[in-house]
Amino acid sequence: MSDAQSTRPARPMSGVLSPVVTPFDADLRPDGARFVRHCQWLLSQDVGLAVFGTNSEGNSLTVGEKIGLLDTLAEAGVPTARMMPGTGTCALGDTVELTRHAVKLGVGGVLMLPPFYYKGNTDEGLFRSFSEVIQRVGDSRLKIYLYHIPPVAQVPITLTVIERLLKAYPGTIAGVKDSSGDWANTNAMLEQFQPAGFDVFAGSESFLLQTLRGGGAGCISATANVNPGPIAKLAATWQRADADEQQAGLDAVRTVFQGYVMIPALKAAIAHYGDDAAWTTVRPPLVELETAQQADMVTRLNAVGFTMPGLAVGAR
Amino acid sequence: MSDAQSTRPARPMSGVLSPVVTPFDADLRPDGARFVRHCQWLLSQDVGLAVFGTNSEGNSLTVGEKIGLLDTLAEAGVPTARMMPGTGTCALGDTVELTRHAVKLGVGGVLMLPPFYYKGNTDEGLFRSFSEVIQRVGDSRLKIYLYHIPPVAQVPITLTVIERLLKAYPGTIAGVKDSSGDWANTNAMLEQFQPAGFDVFAGSESFLLQTLRGGGAGCISATANVNPGPIAKLAATWQRADADEQQAGLDAVRTVFQGYVMIPALKAAIAHYGDDAAWTTVRPPLVELETAQQADMVTRLNAVGFTMPGLAVGAR
Repeated sequence: MSDAQSTRPARPMSGVLSPVVTPFDADLRPDGARFVRHCQWLLSQDVGLAVFGTNSEGNSLTVGEKIGLLDTLAEAGVPTARMMPGTGTCALGDTVELTRHAVKLGVGGVLMLPPFYYKGNTDEGLFRSFSEVIQRVGDSRLKIYLYHIPPVAQVPITLTVIERLLKAYPGTIAGVKDSSGDWANTNAMLEQFQPAGFDVFAGSESFLLQTLRGGGAGCISATANVNPGPIAKLAATWQRADADEQQAGLDAVRTVFQGYVMIPALKAAIAHYGDDAAWTTVRPPLVELETAQQADMVTRLNAVGFTMPGLAVGAR
Repeated sequence: MSDAQSTRPARPMSGVLSPVVTPFDADLRPDGARFVRHCQWLLSQDVGLAVFGTNSEGNSLTVGEKIGLLDTLAEAGVPTARMMPGTGTCALGDTVELTRHAVKLGVGGVLMLPPFYYKGNTDEGLFRSFSEVIQRVGDSRLKIYLYHIPPVAQVPITLTVIERLLKAYPGTIAGVKDSSGDWANTNAMLEQFQPAGFDVFAGSESFLLQTLRGGGAGCISATANVNPGPIAKLAATWQRADADEQQAGLDAVRTVFQGYVMIPALKAAIAHYGDDAAWTTVRPPLVELETAQQADMVTRLNAVGFTMPGLAVGAR
């Protein structure tokens, strides 16, 4: 058992989660077998499964594909309590259907985007969006982590909306992933809502130590797909003297990935270190890294001592 | 037969189309009967049916709901050749399913958003997005109008992508709706692509006269839901001496609607002038106009001589 695993908090939805990258076959269909294998590796590194997040290409999947992948994971024995699937879509009916299915499977929580096509919404409109879903799902097991990611969704979830939701649905609104990249906003959530048990997750490990020191729950990070062990270790040992040093090590790896388009870069790393080229496939509008970019990235990763220990090697 | 109808161009996909607003019942389900009635009224005013556009709350509907509404229209005898349904979604499978169904019903064309969750895409990625859909639908009857609406989708379709698509799929790429609000961009499309038969539609009647003078096909406009006759009249008679005067009249009405959130304002106008309060319902994240706002809007509309002639009055 790893150092991180031994000290993992008892609550399943704390520490580090990864928006699990979704493998596709040559015809762009989701590849269930590779998906299960990657999820199992992440769990072995003490990282939970925020499947269908932004970095999962979750919004390039149909509701049917997402339900199919959830079923595949559950049938493979992947513990649903360690899952926080992304279930927020543009259409109320889609969000309700997917959320209901996830809850039925016993997921630890769901990560919910607001409807993200229409911009410039009022707080009232956003409140109603979440409220309608909660009432239609109508299940006391539902735990919602609000997904605040204005740089991509372009639809922020304001503190005022969170406050209203918490008041109306205290047993259901469980926390937030703050991918604003704005520490002042994360800090405001930590001060205003975390004391009431509303779990604040940083949107990446860049803010992991700060978030934990502020009383937060952990982080949900793209790069936890490739660097899970060290990130989980910091989450488990952040009160030790070497925490800042650990954080610097995480930042060095993340900086390399940030030099490329994140999703194809993550997949290229898994393809390279797992010797499994099929992993490079992405769905449009994304494009895989060029061969030279991939080689350049690997050189830079090797230079900072990056490895993926325990990753299954080869296509089988 | 109205003045506009008598001179409507022979091509079904030119002149004026409306992103038809979608009526909902009290439980937020699409209301097929009211939808059919509004479509029939628009056609009677010589306005085509760009159902499931931005102002249709098209992205708040599931694929199943959109297919159901298309079937309802077809079964009611609404001519599918006058329809240009919005079929572009975030997920390849959804876009293919909806587009395939629309083509099977014999629609005049489809209005296709790029996948709009992931931002900052490359031209290559956007090209592949459309290309994959075209190949998977695999039907020579498919006519795609590209939907360029950066203020909302936040994913622009560049001139370079259009050029590549036209070269690769000349029989399929039929035109564009330019909702950039940037006349320089519309003009570049008119100069670069319209001469080859690529039909440029302005994103609103504000640019209708300019677009027609530049050789374009017409406009697809939110306010054509409420002011269809006068907009269609300008499209049919734009070479007359009074064209600028007509344009000014259209602008005066549009300016009133632009003083409110557009979709609830359109629905409030239909509810008021049709004496049918059910029309005010919107899906979250939108919120209906407040009573005072609606009254204020009606006062301003009456002041500019606005009417909705021929609109069925009352809930039946």
